[in-house]
Amino acid sequence: MAADLFLGADAGGTGIKYVVTHRDGRVLARDEVPTSATDLAGSMARLTAAASRTIRELFSAGATSASVDLLAGVGLACAGIVDPRRGTLGRSPNLPGWENNDLAAALRTAFPELPTALVNDVNGALYGEFKAGAGRGCRNLVMVALGTGVGGGVIVDGELLVGAHYGAGEVGHMVLDVQGPICTCGGRGCLESWAGSTALRRRARELVATGTASEALTHLVKGDSEALTPRALARLAETGDEQANELFAAAGRRLGQAVAILVNVLDPDRVIIGGGVAQAGDLLLEPCRQTAPSMIMATDAAQVPIVQAELGPHAAAVGAACLAREQERAG
Amino acid sequence: MAADLFLGADAGGTGIKYVVTHRDGRVLARDEVPTSATDLAGSMARLTAAASRTIRELFSAGATSASVDLLAGVGLACAGIVDPRRGTLGRSPNLPGWENNDLAAALRTAFPELPTALVNDVNGALYGEFKAGAGRGCRNLVMVALGTGVGGGVIVDGELLVGAHYGAGEVGHMVLDVQGPICTCGGRGCLESWAGSTALRRRARELVATGTASEALTHLVKGDSEALTPRALARLAETGDEQANELFAAAGRRLGQAVAILVNVLDPDRVIIGGGVAQAGDLLLEPCRQTAPSMIMATDAAQVPIVQAELGPHAAAVGAACLAREQERAG
Repeated sequence: MAADLFLGADAGGTGIKYVVTHRDGRVLARDEVPTSATDLAGSMARLTAAASRTIRELFSAGATSASVDLLAGVGLACAGIVDPRRGTLGRSPNLPGWENNDLAAALRTAFPELPTALVNDVNGALYGEFKAGAGRGCRNLVMVALGTGVGGGVIVDGELLVGAHYGAGEVGHMVLDVQGPICTCGGRGCLESWAGSTALRRRARELVATGTASEALTHLVKGDSEALTPRALARLAETGDEQANELFAAAGRRLGQAVAILVNVLDPDRVIIGGGVAQAGDLLLEPCRQTAPSMIMATDAAQVPIVQAELGPHAAAVGAACLAREQERAG
Repeated sequence: MAADLFLGADAGGTGIKYVVTHRDGRVLARDEVPTSATDLAGSMARLTAAASRTIRELFSAGATSASVDLLAGVGLACAGIVDPRRGTLGRSPNLPGWENNDLAAALRTAFPELPTALVNDVNGALYGEFKAGAGRGCRNLVMVALGTGVGGGVIVDGELLVGAHYGAGEVGHMVLDVQGPICTCGGRGCLESWAGSTALRRRARELVATGTASEALTHLVKGDSEALTPRALARLAETGDEQANELFAAAGRRLGQAVAILVNVLDPDRVIIGGGVAQAGDLLLEPCRQTAPSMIMATDAAQVPIVQAELGPHAAAVGAACLAREQERAG
């Protein structure tokens, strides 16, 4: 059997999500292995073993002992500043033991003689959406990823924008109000200080502290802190809880201001909103869509669709696999 | 003599500035002819005649009657939304009679059989700075042009970013504070509402209306309204007038916020500040340079130089000539 499979992996602080795709782009399998945030080589070895097992299971009828031989390329997405040309990882708060390591070498050791691709995780997710999700058919895209923090990425004319220092796409720290809330970065009024999940939780706690919150919101906030998730807040909003609704609406309006800035500067075909907070859907996206157009200068650009990401938590792994495929074609 | 000259022109509401450059990029001559904002063909004919005269003067020793024959290409920069692929001009408030016209055809009629290039004026100025000014040697640039209004442009990996609808680079209408001053666009808190020359003049008048302005500032504001220019305000600031100083400092701090957003998103090698207001130099740029770094997330990006444009009012004409030269090479 020809080497027709691609492995895409996304290394975060606790786990490496991975997908095995066919050359035609179909995702054949997806899974996750634990990361060691301090041991890059060990994590890569674990990924190799897990990928082998996954591929064996895919072809259980004619199982082969050397199943990663079926791979034609491997892509790795990583949280942090990835220099795809030198193959290194810079600052990466979630993977402290991997910082300043040679990712490309570790990947080559784990997967000898395969074409490899490296990418920042949010750029990986954007590339996945571009090739196989909410950005299919576009040439120019912007993504805002609303997780614990807020990240982003830009595609210009079919290529990921990396920037002069591999730092492009830091949309989470656009300052939208110099007197806004304190942000995790130490600044004030960044998009992240309104629209990340940390910000939503903080705001929910503030509302409860004022004593004006509904019983249900108070119960959620005062209960198990693990349970205070964007998903739980969204469910509460969907039941008609006004303050839970307003939490998402306020985040959505600030997201709209940020999207308008991005559209004014980049004029993309489409803006994709991803990350866990985006699963709130229209609770967040409708206020965003209502806010953005009046802040966009060019008439055509004011029509740019603002859409929800489609690929879910494996988006970055899918994107990494797509990049590995591009790499093989180019090589 | 070989056709070794390029003509670059920049059509604004009142005049067409133009330069004649050598193939090696040197500017040999620069001049200006009046524009007819309602007559595109007439304006182009006037440009042809003027360019012929300029070229004859350049070679007065061996004057030739058909001097535009010495041109190897012509580039035209225009205020408004330029679609360089279709060759048309969209919305263009300063050239109402040219709107929705086929610029490429008009240019071909005026300069038969020459390679032509079309570009938006701010993009033209950025391209000029990129090839021959403050952006030489860079691959990724952002420009903010502070004129009556505020425009901008972006170069990614050596190419002008035009966007999906030719609207990219609208940095003047980034909303920096949703409760900021009313902008000419009808919105609130756009960069232009603080840092364009219209905004500076309005703010100077407001200060005088409160009765707290210095005698010199009051005299300037209450005098001939033509004399109330950014240059006159800058001269006053340089004499130590505190409020005139604070006018530029406030504009500079907002410019810093905008530059930080642009650096976070695009991570360029350098940011160029151009346009008439930028002639205030450090009065404006120092507050900008003090504000931006703390709002920039990536450490390396916080070191991005923020520099003044070098080419002056003929920058867009120089850029158009450079683009014509690129066009000839590609063609």
